[in-house]
Amino acid sequence: MSEGLELHKGVGGNAEQPWNLLAGDVPFPAAVLDEGSISHNLDWMRRFIDAYGMALAPHGKTTMAPKLFGRQVQAGAWGITVATSQQARVAAAHGIRRILIANQVVGAANIASLMDLLAIEGMELFCLVDSPAGAASLGDACRTRGAELNVLVELAPERDQPGFRTGVRDEEQLGALLTELDRWKGHLRLAGVEFYEGVLPDEAQVRRFVRRAVSVTRALREEGRLERTPAIFSGAGSAWYDIVAEESAELAQSGDVEVVLRPGCYISHDDGLYRAAQERILERNPVAPTLGDALRPALRIWAVVQSVPDPARAVVAMGKRDVAFDAGLPRPVKMFRPGRDARPVDVPAHWEVTGLMDQHAYLQIAPGDDIAVGDVLVFDISHPCLTFDKWRRLLVVDEEFCCIDVVDTFF
Amino acid sequence: MSEGLELHKGVGGNAEQPWNLLAGDVPFPAAVLDEGSISHNLDWMRRFIDAYGMALAPHGKTTMAPKLFGRQVQAGAWGITVATSQQARVAAAHGIRRILIANQVVGAANIASLMDLLAIEGMELFCLVDSPAGAASLGDACRTRGAELNVLVELAPERDQPGFRTGVRDEEQLGALLTELDRWKGHLRLAGVEFYEGVLPDEAQVRRFVRRAVSVTRALREEGRLERTPAIFSGAGSAWYDIVAEESAELAQSGDVEVVLRPGCYISHDDGLYRAAQERILERNPVAPTLGDALRPALRIWAVVQSVPDPARAVVAMGKRDVAFDAGLPRPVKMFRPGRDARPVDVPAHWEVTGLMDQHAYLQIAPGDDIAVGDVLVFDISHPCLTFDKWRRLLVVDEEFCCIDVVDTFF
Repeated sequence: MSEGLELHKGVGGNAEQPWNLLAGDVPFPAAVLDEGSISHNLDWMRRFIDAYGMALAPHGKTTMAPKLFGRQVQAGAWGITVATSQQARVAAAHGIRRILIANQVVGAANIASLMDLLAIEGMELFCLVDSPAGAASLGDACRTRGAELNVLVELAPERDQPGFRTGVRDEEQLGALLTELDRWKGHLRLAGVEFYEGVLPDEAQVRRFVRRAVSVTRALREEGRLERTPAIFSGAGSAWYDIVAEESAELAQSGDVEVVLRPGCYISHDDGLYRAAQERILERNPVAPTLGDALRPALRIWAVVQSVPDPARAVVAMGKRDVAFDAGLPRPVKMFRPGRDARPVDVPAHWEVTGLMDQHAYLQIAPGDDIAVGDVLVFDISHPCLTFDKWRRLLVVDEEFCCIDVVDTFF
Repeated sequence: MSEGLELHKGVGGNAEQPWNLLAGDVPFPAAVLDEGSISHNLDWMRRFIDAYGMALAPHGKTTMAPKLFGRQVQAGAWGITVATSQQARVAAAHGIRRILIANQVVGAANIASLMDLLAIEGMELFCLVDSPAGAASLGDACRTRGAELNVLVELAPERDQPGFRTGVRDEEQLGALLTELDRWKGHLRLAGVEFYEGVLPDEAQVRRFVRRAVSVTRALREEGRLERTPAIFSGAGSAWYDIVAEESAELAQSGDVEVVLRPGCYISHDDGLYRAAQERILERNPVAPTLGDALRPALRIWAVVQSVPDPARAVVAMGKRDVAFDAGLPRPVKMFRPGRDARPVDVPAHWEVTGLMDQHAYLQIAPGDDIAVGDVLVFDISHPCLTFDKWRRLLVVDEEFCCIDVVDTFF
């Protein structure tokens, strides 16, 4: 164990290596990654991407765990996507040399940090632009440093579509941005087009948006504006990556455009938000169901029953400080009673988390259920991003619940 | 700056000390504590507690920042409250020697960790018990180690009250717990009574609960069961500490019971959940309004406008990764345009955060508003606990926005 981390949640204890989750070695709550499921998920996504002849730059903001970035690159990822210059620094500091920042970087110190990254030997860095003002800030910083930055034009859904975030929303904004980019030749290098479809509510809207992005990309390429070969066409969060793949498959086959998909949640997957999204993908996409076993939830929270004050309620020592709660509450799946059980067993189907406080979960049970103070419960989660960010260190376990590795996060 | 932290949010930059938030030295988003407001809030709460002749053990789970624990102790706090054995370790590692764990500690490794803390020279440690099973686990660990642990009986609201969490709910549960404690004489030392009233919905219910806690405490004292002099009577989160103080004032004056209040949010305060709670306290409590200026929101998030894609919406580079969103969204209060403004100025009253994604905030504006990519916005927050836990380091600034200190968190 590294110095300085032993004061944090899920880290500590007084046992010799190897720790085992069933042996009382590990303080709970703990965030636990299942090695078999992580490996399976890495392999599954590699095969999906390969089937479409595309490239993968998984969104690193999900885990912010450089050790997992390394696993993703080892499993064939083209690069790592991040959301901010701080996240890019983390990736760069851990050896990632192709980084796509899926945002226009703003703010003087943030841009300065980006410039430092550009100076790293062998670094290929991409940043979005969506406005003349944003482009000018980045261009100016590059000029001052004598640097050149790859930029991708960020597209937003059109004005009559139901949902948008950042990105140029119409031809006029696009035109103004391209004109600004012309001013920064030699400093901002237009490498392609980027979009995020996750703000849209349904498949039809997503398809329409991706088609427009494809058409803008073709037009820019035909106008000779794209200065990288192959040019980059990049989109896709964890909910619609199949649609993006389908709609850009032809572009990918053209040879002079690299389609870069960016789902981030597949590595840990979950049992809520992204289980539901993945089920829809398996239903509508022709390739996904051919890839064998589906993605598996690899991230779980282990916690201990603290109190059973009432025949219908237990209180578990796990709260908003430990697990995401913005897209469904954690769901108990296994229990383990030290001294009685050899392995975790299934929990009754009617057990349900009905509320979370900062440090406590309310668990609805039924009178007569066999649950006791000190029982260890294992919870599936919904929304890995906001679960990872509750932990500085996660434990990686094998099938016997031995801790075979640790994964540190850098939020 | 310490080694190893420069990869995290809000930390980094390329400038010489002292950093100034207005000078482009600090990467945004950043979590910023105002030194003047922190000092004011520390002083305010000290005077409130003094007025009632009580003791303060602020809940450290709010900040998990040992430097702030130190400030609280320096400002007269009797001890520090925490929620878990991990949090107790953090406090102990940073010199706190009186720690109240406001939960029954469960789980083998967690209890082992507690035993390690008991062995620290000069440590006075308190832990709750609310069931025979919980008491037996703790008692057994103490017996094995030859240690003695101070315990407080945790009371829950009664069965006909609308709200409960942990704690004994009736005389029968209390009796069973006391019988169990008798088995562990010499290992578990019953030091007093604890409760948490924040699960109740209104003043009448809170008063009723506190009165019962007072009456249970008196009864236990009269039966000679309380083995510490003075005995401990402890309750109060940040919303109802005035009612707890009022209802236990007589007990505090008795001389042989120490009333320990545990609000945690006052140090940073906020502009949402706890501003509203504090306004109610100022209305109903006779002492609070006599203490001069009210508590001030001391924790703000600084972030940068990333995109203004639409006349009615800006997007700010700040999201669920940076700020609490479970009890109201952050509220823009100031803006600062580098190169134009000498100091932050007020934002229009109609600007409002309407939604947060992981890394973005949607800001509703009006057509024609003067807002641009690169503008720095300052946000008040609601729910400090879940904002602190998004940051490994916060910046402390003076009135000129110079960074005069940093505060590290240990979640």
